[in-house]
Amino acid sequence: MMRKGRQVANDLVVSLFVNPTQFGPNEDFAAYPQKTERDLAMAEAVGVDAVFMPATGEMYPEGFQTYVDQSELPDHLCGLSRPGHFRGVLTVVAKLFNIIRPHIAVFGRKDYQQIAIVRQMVRDLNFDIEIESVPTVREADGLAMSSRNSRLEDGQREAALSLHQALQMAQELVLRGERRSERLIESAGAVIQKYPDASIDYIKICDAQTLNDAPVVDRPTLMALAVKVGEVRLIDHAILEPRD
Amino acid sequence: MMRKGRQVANDLVVSLFVNPTQFGPNEDFAAYPQKTERDLAMAEAVGVDAVFMPATGEMYPEGFQTYVDQSELPDHLCGLSRPGHFRGVLTVVAKLFNIIRPHIAVFGRKDYQQIAIVRQMVRDLNFDIEIESVPTVREADGLAMSSRNSRLEDGQREAALSLHQALQMAQELVLRGERRSERLIESAGAVIQKYPDASIDYIKICDAQTLNDAPVVDRPTLMALAVKVGEVRLIDHAILEPRD
Repeated sequence: MMRKGRQVANDLVVSLFVNPTQFGPNEDFAAYPQKTERDLAMAEAVGVDAVFMPATGEMYPEGFQTYVDQSELPDHLCGLSRPGHFRGVLTVVAKLFNIIRPHIAVFGRKDYQQIAIVRQMVRDLNFDIEIESVPTVREADGLAMSSRNSRLEDGQREAALSLHQALQMAQELVLRGERRSERLIESAGAVIQKYPDASIDYIKICDAQTLNDAPVVDRPTLMALAVKVGEVRLIDHAILEPRD
Repeated sequence: MMRKGRQVANDLVVSLFVNPTQFGPNEDFAAYPQKTERDLAMAEAVGVDAVFMPATGEMYPEGFQTYVDQSELPDHLCGLSRPGHFRGVLTVVAKLFNIIRPHIAVFGRKDYQQIAIVRQMVRDLNFDIEIESVPTVREADGLAMSSRNSRLEDGQREAALSLHQALQMAQELVLRGERRSERLIESAGAVIQKYPDASIDYIKICDAQTLNDAPVVDRPTLMALAVKVGEVRLIDHAILEPRD
């Protein structure tokens, strides 16, 4: 994301902030991996102009009470298992937009719903900001890179790989002509259920814009899933593209 | 407000927009008085640089779903009788701020809660905007100026005047040493109840910052009221200032 920012912007500001308002009371805010020194070294290597690293109390002073939320997009996928999560995301992104006032903002595409929600906010609240995204970066074995991966214990990595394997399975079935979402979800689920450490939160196939359930894959369609591996909640997604 | 803007700004933009999202389903959006030609003539007389007069569908296109809301300040005064009202206000003000990007924004002080809520949003969402306010303008007889006054029928004007009279009564009692909010509210209510056309929505005495109920007036304290006169909902307020 930093490298993308360096390509598209004259002045590049990176925010390093683990945002408490997007974690639920029973979620892993306290355990969320922060690697500030590594991140700062990366920023320096990329040639970032400034790093914005506010204290929590600076972002949310006493009496803080204003939130940005949406009425539709959060009622899907991760929004259902993480009530309030996207309200927290929208609020902190609106704050960062107003503090930094960027012309362009770069997000990682791994959290598909997050980018969809940010784009919708930009449109609805008239932020004059262009949203750029970078594709999910994967380890050599296919695991989508995430800060949370460092919390996987030995032996859990195989279960973590099941997300990508399940998506690949569904993509292959689509290429072979399967278009029924129910069948695709079943097959993907079977891949994950082979791993006793993995517990499925959701597997969904949905319209890539509205995130409404799509019963058939008759156009490029989002397949998104969330799986808990031990204590670690992982997400991944793919766009399923049927042959013509 | 336009004159104040002309004094404080180099470039002055006035927005003329009756915002549907701040009216409830049973409220007077359709009947809200719009006097576009008069407003434009005023803008011209004051030397406004631009008028922003968007169409409703331009502000709220299909699929619109992002809202700004607060968790505390709207749970008081008008927010209680008009659920969703301040969510609509905050949302449209955030949009106007992002579209116009003003350095200074001018609001009328008549709706005390509205300004409190906008100031809180500016702080919480880090808008780099200074909020200026202008005091309530009153007719010669004391009636607070409002677009809605034009909807008062003959004979209802006296009832409408009861809001200001009730506030004056309370101010006088405070100067005479009464500090108990309950007594002040009773006396103010009695003034209004003399008019059969007037029906009290609320009379409150509350902390001028938090809007929490204040049982005694031992510092400058807000007295706010909302009264329905026939079909027309009117509001007014005063700051009660006890003698030392």
